[in-house]
Amino acid sequence: MTHFFKVKTLDEVMALKQHFCPKQQETIAVDAAFSRILAQDVTAPRNMPGFRRATMDGYAIQASASFGASESTPAWLEIQGSIPMGQVPDFVLAPGKAAGIATGGMLPRGADAVVMVEHTQIIDDTSLEMYKSVAPLQNVIDDDEDCKSGEVVLPAGTFLRPQEVGLAAGMGFSTLPVYQVPRVGIISTGDEIIPINEDPSPGRIRDINSYTLSGFVQEAHARPVRYGIVKDDPGALQACCEKALAETDMVLISGGSSVGTRDYTVEVLSQLPDTDILVHGMSVSPGKPTILARSGTIPVWGLPGQVVSAMVVMKMVVVPFLHWIQGYAAPKPLFRIPARLTRNVASAQGRRDFIRVVLENGPDGLMAKPVLGKSGLIRTMVLADGLLDIGENREGLEKNTWTQVIVL
Amino acid sequence: MTHFFKVKTLDEVMALKQHFCPKQQETIAVDAAFSRILAQDVTAPRNMPGFRRATMDGYAIQASASFGASESTPAWLEIQGSIPMGQVPDFVLAPGKAAGIATGGMLPRGADAVVMVEHTQIIDDTSLEMYKSVAPLQNVIDDDEDCKSGEVVLPAGTFLRPQEVGLAAGMGFSTLPVYQVPRVGIISTGDEIIPINEDPSPGRIRDINSYTLSGFVQEAHARPVRYGIVKDDPGALQACCEKALAETDMVLISGGSSVGTRDYTVEVLSQLPDTDILVHGMSVSPGKPTILARSGTIPVWGLPGQVVSAMVVMKMVVVPFLHWIQGYAAPKPLFRIPARLTRNVASAQGRRDFIRVVLENGPDGLMAKPVLGKSGLIRTMVLADGLLDIGENREGLEKNTWTQVIVL
Repeated sequence: MTHFFKVKTLDEVMALKQHFCPKQQETIAVDAAFSRILAQDVTAPRNMPGFRRATMDGYAIQASASFGASESTPAWLEIQGSIPMGQVPDFVLAPGKAAGIATGGMLPRGADAVVMVEHTQIIDDTSLEMYKSVAPLQNVIDDDEDCKSGEVVLPAGTFLRPQEVGLAAGMGFSTLPVYQVPRVGIISTGDEIIPINEDPSPGRIRDINSYTLSGFVQEAHARPVRYGIVKDDPGALQACCEKALAETDMVLISGGSSVGTRDYTVEVLSQLPDTDILVHGMSVSPGKPTILARSGTIPVWGLPGQVVSAMVVMKMVVVPFLHWIQGYAAPKPLFRIPARLTRNVASAQGRRDFIRVVLENGPDGLMAKPVLGKSGLIRTMVLADGLLDIGENREGLEKNTWTQVIVL
Repeated sequence: MTHFFKVKTLDEVMALKQHFCPKQQETIAVDAAFSRILAQDVTAPRNMPGFRRATMDGYAIQASASFGASESTPAWLEIQGSIPMGQVPDFVLAPGKAAGIATGGMLPRGADAVVMVEHTQIIDDTSLEMYKSVAPLQNVIDDDEDCKSGEVVLPAGTFLRPQEVGLAAGMGFSTLPVYQVPRVGIISTGDEIIPINEDPSPGRIRDINSYTLSGFVQEAHARPVRYGIVKDDPGALQACCEKALAETDMVLISGGSSVGTRDYTVEVLSQLPDTDILVHGMSVSPGKPTILARSGTIPVWGLPGQVVSAMVVMKMVVVPFLHWIQGYAAPKPLFRIPARLTRNVASAQGRRDFIRVVLENGPDGLMAKPVLGKSGLIRTMVLADGLLDIGENREGLEKNTWTQVIVL
């Protein structure tokens, strides 16, 4: 079933995410939840903080007792007591009275505001003057001001940053339902590729793609599984591919760069059961000879063998698919930094170009300086701080244009 | 030795990094090196790729044989053979001859360029026509074009992204010298704070800071060690602090918010041997009551108890110190995204303000919408996409100003 495939645009490729599903759920400890994706809505089980809490050191009062107070006409209040931290006040505040309270303390019933200690002066053991008026709930966090009972505070599909983990912990969730971490199988192919611990004779080069692709998988908080190097042999590739399909949730085959290898990949994939070739070529540079297949529920990518091309396709195309499988509700945005282009850059109409650039300080912000060099040179990616995205409808960008650089 | 300390600016606090040193080195496998910091320069042990390598499928030739070739006046060449992938060609290319070669293949001696297969036509078994002239080294990666033997390709202090790991692997380094991963001790204090698996009676709240601070430590690729909750008791705090100092490389004490807790921290730290208080108050909002001490070689932070304040100080102040201890050669830049402010924001002259904002799409780019809410509300940090940095010399920012949002 090797059909003729029209080269697809990047947007057309992205739309194929719909052919795949997020991983299954699991329940994990909240302190292991950083960088995971929530699989179910989290609902507040009760109000938070759950009581009126002071946000300043001072005196709990009824706000109305302070109305009109100023430096020249202070209000006078009787001190009714003070509130130990972490305790429920054992009295109800009477009108016109005040109770000492520290930041974080619980207001007594009858009190609805806190006057800051800086705006008061103690007159004697039982009374104080107040030089400022406070509004109801001023310097107070109300009972349900952080979260209301029953409210969805974290929707399914949320990436758990430190603050989301903290919120869940604060609500008493010691475990959370999250999506499982996808495993990504990585296969390098090519008769000229050797393992990194071997000494290359002339004509051979060490495997770089397995390591760069693993790094991108880790950066995306997924788990790389390396299957090593397969020679340009359809039988060997099929066996390795079947093993990876059985053990992982996504498979990356980075092409040896010899003639026909790319077709081996399509040929091998076409012979697997329940497998469709969805993409065979993209209008993206570098990265044109990219393949995407669906094998059962698993996406299988054929990536270019050129090291830069493989990385660009990984960053711009494969990682968004990985995020989808991880269960992100919305596409995770790429970090883009504005910078002014240092020179003209050519691009072909109808092709999405990603240009490696170095960011340098310029007179009015950052400057994006294109890194020259072929897509077989890994060094150019080491020098690069980011990628410039030149859309299909442009024939290039002129020197001094403000552009958005995708951070690498 | 509790001295009077002047409140310090953020820049003054940052300059105190010099009091501390990076962690020791260790040697790890290259496939575990992603996100680590290189501790020694990496020098190319030999040229890479180490031979002349084709970047296109076509024919290896001597470029001069193609000069003047065009569609109307093709050059004619004799085919001398073809080069198997990964092999050293067993012949020297004679002048005026061509050898079939695939992308990644090794050029034979005598050849200095590759003409793309698309620009040739085979005439018979032994000859072909060429319709385009190629320059020397065109469609070829030269012997030392990626790396030159003896060149420092990765300097010490480099954060190892996927491409740096790939470069090191490609040069045959199966291990790399990196800085050890710092352990960060995290202590929560406060009589009102309870563990997350307990049900808070009114007046008490669950520990949030231990979880948010752990998340930021993980985000920075360091290792959090939680020491739980210490009540407002100097003896207990000192004991916990000594344990954390013995076991970790940086200690964070997030303050209970009750009166005097902050002084407990300074008092306890002052009584530890070989300990100086370096910072006791910063002109930063939120985050003013921040403490920094040096205990032996270890930085100890007293962070505000308010959840938002603790997170802002962690992100803007503590994490840069952590990067320093991790061995970064240059401060890791914060991701900043330009956005237009949706409303006026006030700030005090002489104070560095960090305002929580949501990013929304607007007519000419992103809009930064301040999140209203007190610094005791973790929900405001969950809603926020970033922080707006308002410098000491400004009294606020006007609606519609273009600002740089620090991504959270």
